[in-house]
Amino acid sequence: MDFRSDNVAGASPEILAALAAANGGTAAAYGADEITARLEARFRELFEHEVAVFPVATGTAANALALATLTPPWGVIYCHEEAHAAIDECGAPEFFSGGGKIVTLPGADGKITPDAVAARLTERGFVHHAQPAAITISQTTEAGTLYRPPDLAALGDFAHRHGMALHVDGARFGNAVAALGCAPADITWRAGVDALSFGATKNGALAAEAVVFFDPDKARELGYRRKRAGHLFSKMRFLSAQLEAYLADGLWLRNARHANRMAARLGSGLVRQKAARLRHPVEANEVFVELPERVIRALDAQGFRFYRWGGAEATCLRLVASFATREDEVDRFIAAAEALLAQGNLID
Amino acid sequence: MDFRSDNVAGASPEILAALAAANGGTAAAYGADEITARLEARFRELFEHEVAVFPVATGTAANALALATLTPPWGVIYCHEEAHAAIDECGAPEFFSGGGKIVTLPGADGKITPDAVAARLTERGFVHHAQPAAITISQTTEAGTLYRPPDLAALGDFAHRHGMALHVDGARFGNAVAALGCAPADITWRAGVDALSFGATKNGALAAEAVVFFDPDKARELGYRRKRAGHLFSKMRFLSAQLEAYLADGLWLRNARHANRMAARLGSGLVRQKAARLRHPVEANEVFVELPERVIRALDAQGFRFYRWGGAEATCLRLVASFATREDEVDRFIAAAEALLAQGNLID
Amino acid sequence: MDFRSDNVAGASPEILAALAAANGGTAAAYGADEITARLEARFRELFEHEVAVFPVATGTAANALALATLTPPWGVIYCHEEAHAAIDECGAPEFFSGGGKIVTLPGADGKITPDAVAARLTERGFVHHAQPAAITISQTTEAGTLYRPPDLAALGDFAHRHGMALHVDGARFGNAVAALGCAPADITWRAGVDALSFGATKNGALAAEAVVFFDPDKARELGYRRKRAGHLFSKMRFLSAQLEAYLADGLWLRNARHANRMAARLGSGLVRQKAARLRHPVEANEVFVELPERVIRALDAQGFRFYRWGGAEATCLRLVASFATREDEVDRFIAAAEALLAQGNLID
Amino acid sequence: MDFRSDNVAGASPEILAALAAANGGTAAAYGADEITARLEARFRELFEHEVAVFPVATGTAANALALATLTPPWGVIYCHEEAHAAIDECGAPEFFSGGGKIVTLPGADGKITPDAVAARLTERGFVHHAQPAAITISQTTEAGTLYRPPDLAALGDFAHRHGMALHVDGARFGNAVAALGCAPADITWRAGVDALSFGATKNGALAAEAVVFFDPDKARELGYRRKRAGHLFSKMRFLSAQLEAYLADGLWLRNARHANRMAARLGSGLVRQKAARLRHPVEANEVFVELPERVIRALDAQGFRFYRWGGAEATCLRLVASFATREDEVDRFIAAAEALLAQGNLID
Repeated sequence: MDFRSDNVAGASPEILAALAAANGGTAAAYGADEITARLEARFRELFEHEVAVFPVATGTAANALALATLTPPWGVIYCHEEAHAAIDECGAPEFFSGGGKIVTLPGADGKITPDAVAARLTERGFVHHAQPAAITISQTTEAGTLYRPPDLAALGDFAHRHGMALHVDGARFGNAVAALGCAPADITWRAGVDALSFGATKNGALAAEAVVFFDPDKARELGYRRKRAGHLFSKMRFLSAQLEAYLADGLWLRNARHANRMAARLGSGLVRQKAARLRHPVEANEVFVELPERVIRALDAQGFRFYRWGGAEATCLRLVASFATREDEVDRFIAAAEALLAQGNLID
Repeated sequence: MDFRSDNVAGASPEILAALAAANGGTAAAYGADEITARLEARFRELFEHEVAVFPVATGTAANALALATLTPPWGVIYCHEEAHAAIDECGAPEFFSGGGKIVTLPGADGKITPDAVAARLTERGFVHHAQPAAITISQTTEAGTLYRPPDLAALGDFAHRHGMALHVDGARFGNAVAALGCAPADITWRAGVDALSFGATKNGALAAEAVVFFDPDKARELGYRRKRAGHLFSKMRFLSAQLEAYLADGLWLRNARHANRMAARLGSGLVRQKAARLRHPVEANEVFVELPERVIRALDAQGFRFYRWGGAEATCLRLVASFATREDEVDRFIAAAEALLAQGNLID
Repeated sequence: MDFRSDNVAGASPEILAALAAANGGTAAAYGADEITARLEARFRELFEHEVAVFPVATGTAANALALATLTPPWGVIYCHEEAHAAIDECGAPEFFSGGGKIVTLPGADGKITPDAVAARLTERGFVHHAQPAAITISQTTEAGTLYRPPDLAALGDFAHRHGMALHVDGARFGNAVAALGCAPADITWRAGVDALSFGATKNGALAAEAVVFFDPDKARELGYRRKRAGHLFSKMRFLSAQLEAYLADGLWLRNARHANRMAARLGSGLVRQKAARLRHPVEANEVFVELPERVIRALDAQGFRFYRWGGAEATCLRLVASFATREDEVDRFIAAAEALLAQGNLID
Repeated sequence: MDFRSDNVAGASPEILAALAAANGGTAAAYGADEITARLEARFRELFEHEVAVFPVATGTAANALALATLTPPWGVIYCHEEAHAAIDECGAPEFFSGGGKIVTLPGADGKITPDAVAARLTERGFVHHAQPAAITISQTTEAGTLYRPPDLAALGDFAHRHGMALHVDGARFGNAVAALGCAPADITWRAGVDALSFGATKNGALAAEAVVFFDPDKARELGYRRKRAGHLFSKMRFLSAQLEAYLADGLWLRNARHANRMAARLGSGLVRQKAARLRHPVEANEVFVELPERVIRALDAQGFRFYRWGGAEATCLRLVASFATREDEVDRFIAAAEALLAQGNLID
């Protein structure tokens, strides 16, 4: 009954099994092994496009490496004001880029638009201003919502017209692909995305992400950046094996679909109650719901775990479903909330 | 028959088992889980001292985080001219420290002395010079040799008298403890070591190291540095579980002793041949041996794998034994070298 | 008739004369000369407080050095959304601090309040968030307005209660002191200011500013930062001589009062016209006035020089008076605007 | 009688006069003024080549900006072990480049050769190693000697064959041109030099240097770097005016020739004494002479000023002549040394 995040879940058994399978014999270090070699081909196939793929262990590393590659030290990175890269990475993009500047933008349901970027766009070539370099969005967003292909295409087009790159923080990329029912290409290079942080950790891996560039030429320096940031694993096979298993047999989409289904069930269960208000539409595996303070406290006391969204006194809960969330957990949460809200109606 | 490095080995079964065991249920993310909580106590006990412990996944990350914590951006880090931190980390210490300067020093068998540092010591307080900040040594060294407690105490004392800290790159720390038969404390804080990169990856983990500070006060900012470098794992339990298993039941010393024994066997087997010359004494799990070019080529052709040390044309081999190296592999290498050298004697 | 900025003016004759006077004989380099020695005492007297003083040549250098000293690489600097440090320094604070983060805040007439900072304050000790480190304000503000002592005390108090420092970008500090008629201490340390970028360039020097810290202990590393940023002058006497002459005989306040008077004359002259609207009150040496597009074009055609504020299509002008602005220039501008506006009334 | 450095001298009267002349009227800020516009043409003519020119105020700034432009954060800069950039800039190149690595090389009389670089060249494309990026030399060297055009051509050729750039720290570039009697082009682009720190401060300016790139395309980002480092002057005319006067009417070469002549006189005067040994040939404006400790102390007591070279106990003096050094000062030093050495002969 732990809805704090999808990273409180463990790992998919298939992925643990892949680690064991990868353990036989010796293997060349630092990515010169066979599993890693297969991985690049696998990603090429997955995205129906040339790619450069750099496995790393955390989403912050993936984002920071990608953004630093796209941004000079005097560059501006535009993103939503709730973006993980802006808020939750303790300045990783600034660190990796050598002092880049993040400009945060408002936007409904966690999404930004070309207009929002345009309103803050710095003047290209004017030496006093940090220079437009990249737009980064989260897919799914920090609000659990989705950018559709046309949303992305508009951003990609705007970015390129202004000499910027478009990056996607795909910590929950699997949830997005599963929810949209599209090809991975449809919400990446086909829509103008230049680089993707492809996340697996939140959706069943132990610790595995991949930086994916759709123009390998633009990623030529990324290997140096990864190494000097301490993100090149010596026993790389154990990182690559996670990603390989994640993609094999559709595990990643199976896991994501399950998580999305659990969130949808949770959201629709809660919204039947008049006193529960969804802050954002439930489009993937996250539910943002406003509940009375009294109900939040009682749920907490009953052992449900979740984060208040917006600080210790906020009455909006973020509830995240993972590949491991069970239907009965969801139903118990709904039932508990329903009961508490019903009491409330008597009291109020 | 792969002697390229101890990182070509896989993982100890005990450590893989620990991952599986850690996989049950949900766990608080980012190190707030129970396994990580136990780990700090375990390290305290291991070192018989207060410690601050920060698990990370790579040795480069451990070194760079430790050194950046000990060094201002205008600091000088002194180390041996073959130090991993100086040569093999693509500038990670410079990156993490915000532009620190590494000054490399000569020294027999991979070791530096206070005199070597003194010869290059910059003037404290002179604003034109980068300022003395830290000495970092590798234990075991890049030459497979060992610093004894008095060697360390001399360096620690020198460092502290000059306002510097002493850091140990312990990528092969287990091999050192096993070889010296001492307490971990004897070659760390008791000898003046301020911070240790405690390595497990090369000795049986998949990817697990720990930055250990013996004065937790000095490590107060390290958490921020780790996070913004992308080295804070969300599913931290899988990192901590590796370290816990590594230390449980003496696995780390068992693995290290085996590797050391294999290297000793290899070294003493080779040195029986007149034409094979050891470049450094074999004190832990590495053998540096000079062989005729013709023998090296033949060994390569027979499928033995190793690195030439000093470039593609060097005739010194580095042979590394790991926890997984088998006695028969060692013996086959010795026999092959012996046979080739004997032929050589006929030919020459 | 050039109102573009106070930095289009040349230098005060007194300051040029001081350069010539400083030119006799040899002098120890890098600040060990006698003029520089006198300067620290002069600043101590000026501020009635212990100070550490670091002369540099540009305001961007002064700001970035001060902020980097107050902010760890993972720190947040809060400022107004129009702050020079945020907008016009091409990321200097981010560069000097090693990747610090600037969070910009709204605020009427170029000023921020504790409440505005509080609304964006990151959580201290939460490792995912960049940490609150400093508040920086401009005095006079980018809107040509003033923080009064109580405004500053409120910010200083808020900053210190939250473990932050308060920095003042005093590129136009002389204009502020002259306008407020207060002691320099009243709007610095007495109001909780920790560090000041004391500007002279805009008010009569060729290129001279000083970073002033009111707690010299906190500035101990600043000398290294200045040197490695290339801002330690070898012939420092020529930098110090400018500052000495600037402070001697009240030149700085004389210059500032004149500039302020010219701006006041300009503002009150313009505001007599119904069609001219002041965007901000004129409190120091800058006038922000909204005029019809047709009038702006005509003024430009008549040879008046100024910047549109807010981009090439804005109809708000920033008019800056300097120590060298003449009354007749001001009057001609007013007369020209008046005439054009009168025509407009006929036309409209 | 002050031979500490050429930066203890003041400024040439012609340059001070140029400041006064530049002071009339208003001028566009940040380098959009007329004097700066003329300067680029003047440098083009001087070097008989397209150039991009960036005036700055210090040699450290010029070096660090040039090197950061030529070097990625993971780059290696090769230089002599006494290079100013390596030793006397408190890590400026590391700071500006975002963590570049300086590798210092031995070399007689302050000079390095392609062979010295080759001995330490890191492996291109090997991700573990910082990558070869630039060679920087000082002309004149830190030993007061000269690289001849063929020396430079060899370094330039080596650099380019290995994908590196060649940079010249020309803090004493005028002394080199005067001594070699060559065209500036002969020891810059014609010999393969990519970028030059063109120094004027030590040879008569107050504080003025210029970063010169011979391929303007390679300097496209330098304007951003200069701005964010705080080295873009608002009243740029006062920086450009110094450089213009420095180059006008051959002032720079007149000053340099005088300084060189004074050093030659000093060197040949001293070397007539058996007990005085020149450490390096006197080729420009510096003399390195070994004298008995007793003589050094007596010279110091007589009021001569100089630096011991190699620390407080070294018995090698560095004596630097400037444009302002007078013949009688030189002769008095020689006479004093001669007398003291003669006494010594009696005593010894």
